Amino acid sequence: MGTPVKPSRRQLFGYAGAAAAGAAVTGAATVALDKQPPPASRLISPYGDRQPGVAASSPRHGELVAFNLKPGTDKAALGRLMRLWSANVVALGNGQPAPGDTAPELATANTALTTTVGFGARVFELAGNKPAAPDDLPVMRHDRLQDEWSGGDLLILVGADDELSVVHAVRRFVADAKPFAVPAWRQTGFWNSTGPDGKPVTGRNLFGQVDGTGNPAVGTPEFDATVWAADGSTTLVVRRIKLNLDTWDERTRSEQERAIGRKLSTGAPLTGTAEHDELDLEARDAEGRPVIAANAHARLSHHSENDGRRIFRKGLNYVHDSGTTRESGLIFLSYQADIAGQFLPLLARLDAADALNEWTTTIGSAVFAIPPGFQPGGWLGQKVLG
Amino acid sequence: MGTPVKPSRRQLFGYAGAAAAGAAVTGAATVALDKQPPPASRLISPYGDRQPGVAASSPRHGELVAFNLKPGTDKAALGRLMRLWSANVVALGNGQPAPGDTAPELATANTALTTTVGFGARVFELAGNKPAAPDDLPVMRHDRLQDEWSGGDLLILVGADDELSVVHAVRRFVADAKPFAVPAWRQTGFWNSTGPDGKPVTGRNLFGQVDGTGNPAVGTPEFDATVWAADGSTTLVVRRIKLNLDTWDERTRSEQERAIGRKLSTGAPLTGTAEHDELDLEARDAEGRPVIAANAHARLSHHSENDGRRIFRKGLNYVHDSGTTRESGLIFLSYQADIAGQFLPLLARLDAADALNEWTTTIGSAVFAIPPGFQPGGWLGQKVLG
Repeated sequence: MGTPVKPSRRQLFGYAGAAAAGAAVTGAATVALDKQPPPASRLISPYGDRQPGVAASSPRHGELVAFNLKPGTDKAALGRLMRLWSANVVALGNGQPAPGDTAPELATANTALTTTVGFGARVFELAGNKPAAPDDLPVMRHDRLQDEWSGGDLLILVGADDELSVVHAVRRFVADAKPFAVPAWRQTGFWNSTGPDGKPVTGRNLFGQVDGTGNPAVGTPEFDATVWAADGSTTLVVRRIKLNLDTWDERTRSEQERAIGRKLSTGAPLTGTAEHDELDLEARDAEGRPVIAANAHARLSHHSENDGRRIFRKGLNYVHDSGTTRESGLIFLSYQADIAGQFLPLLARLDAADALNEWTTTIGSAVFAIPPGFQPGGWLGQKVLG
Repeated sequence: MGTPVKPSRRQLFGYAGAAAAGAAVTGAATVALDKQPPPASRLISPYGDRQPGVAASSPRHGELVAFNLKPGTDKAALGRLMRLWSANVVALGNGQPAPGDTAPELATANTALTTTVGFGARVFELAGNKPAAPDDLPVMRHDRLQDEWSGGDLLILVGADDELSVVHAVRRFVADAKPFAVPAWRQTGFWNSTGPDGKPVTGRNLFGQVDGTGNPAVGTPEFDATVWAADGSTTLVVRRIKLNLDTWDERTRSEQERAIGRKLSTGAPLTGTAEHDELDLEARDAEGRPVIAANAHARLSHHSENDGRRIFRKGLNYVHDSGTTRESGLIFLSYQADIAGQFLPLLARLDAADALNEWTTTIGSAVFAIPPGFQPGGWLGQKVLG
């Protein structure tokens, strides 16, 4: 669902592009358009106090794989797997083959690849710790959850601008997990955060709706307070939401916009003219009715309705074919420091009244703690499993 | 499978980028790297004597949908569908909503979207014409064809640099076909023709193999003679080839390279040092054995083994999940003016002896005539159906 503020050049281009960007700032490098060098390799450093994929721009292509631990996998074994995975996170994030890579040429350096690793409650139980996130969310009235898209003890979320890079990376993580854990589900999706004019945009879901406008801006104190616990961890909710495009398309655009509370063209609130205009939740039309309806998605999901508490939403559009029948939907991703305080009240309110419920059905749900990042010499989950 | 020569700037950027490119050539535009405008919209003109998707660079993302005609669909009805589809080809190729588009904002102008339309033999029968391509290929010894990936009376092949654009476009074509034809199969895939340094490359399949080196270079007389009939038509063979990555990975790199006849690192022939070095099919090693083995894929598929006749191969990597089990493969696409003369002898030779047969299984096969392109005021298939 994109972020309203694009990451800094430094964040996007990592070390590889920093020299070029620096040269440009000093005015030393001016080039004719037809003599431009190829785009600098787009690397996002895999290191940091926080896992870097969380705050990174939505990738063009993403894949999530949840795993269930094998019965024999204990704390020590899990620590071994996390050391293996951490080496993959570093190598593949740097555009290098993973250790033991059987197709090393498929690791490429220009795709802004990140891997985010998550822990289900079982990992904390194995380690004798209190889980950092609940095992499951309460089941909502509109949920039609399927086991095949729900739960899991471990998660990898690989994102990149290129599907080949994602598929190759995922294969390494799954292969290395084999002695320890088996895939529980796989979900793949896509996002376009480049507008028709080539500039960064929030992006749209398959309803055509600009999706993610309400996010706190990456890099702001509000973002940090929303997402990060003091130790650099966060939590991730993954919801697989089926969209009924056929019945959605039967509505007029103004009915669709009334359900959303925003304009389809720009994502602006129905009370404003630009995407990031603040909602006027008090505004009334000539007949005295609220301009942004009581059950509009934008009203019910607005942080002012949630005691000011926010979440950081990202997402991936998906299509899933069974034979020639295509299901369309959204892999909804929500990051927040505290699921109970930030996410659950919002979820309950949307389940109770969101106008969009008419066309959406959540068919999968999973929760993961996202442990802090790591520095050279360290590994993912070291504090819990070390 | 990419093309050894990248399309011209004009071809890639269409009219939208032409002004910028022109300015650069005159030296009028020099910009600092940090003040670069966003990339020019990447449009490929939907018009032309030949359908433009054929010679265009392999798209990052592609989807093929084959359709079977409904019983009541006659020549006149098919002509109506082709007029509808032609309007979609133009609008979506120009980054504009299709007529009647229910999610017009999902049409974006920067994704180099092309749609290629194909006709099965049934279309020509309906029109009372001799089919321009055979209905089916002969079944090969190694084929394990499944109905769910084979045949079809009509085809659309939508390619773009962005999956959302492809999914949105395909939805319009399928929706407009509803009164006339029903989907027979859908295949989606991806290709990366950008190297680690950001420069154009041939691209790799999921074996890690550089795939498409032997193609004639787009724009050369050899390319035109390979691909195009005099009227601007061509033919397309679609083969869904499952790759057994697990058993492939059990082999050493030198065993893999011996099966291919080329180096994995660069795609160079085993007798050369650079990707486009000519194969030396006579070269022998110290023990007197051919350096490029008798059953090496590169030898058997080389045009010198085919009376000098070539094909133009493109392709899309695919992954297909059944629950948590992932199948990996290649959607093999071959364009040629004459299937019987150019493609069938090659297919038979590879089926008889190709070392790669050990790890590949063709599970789908379909053949389509690709009618000429059209100009403003015209439509696809007008000569056959008009």
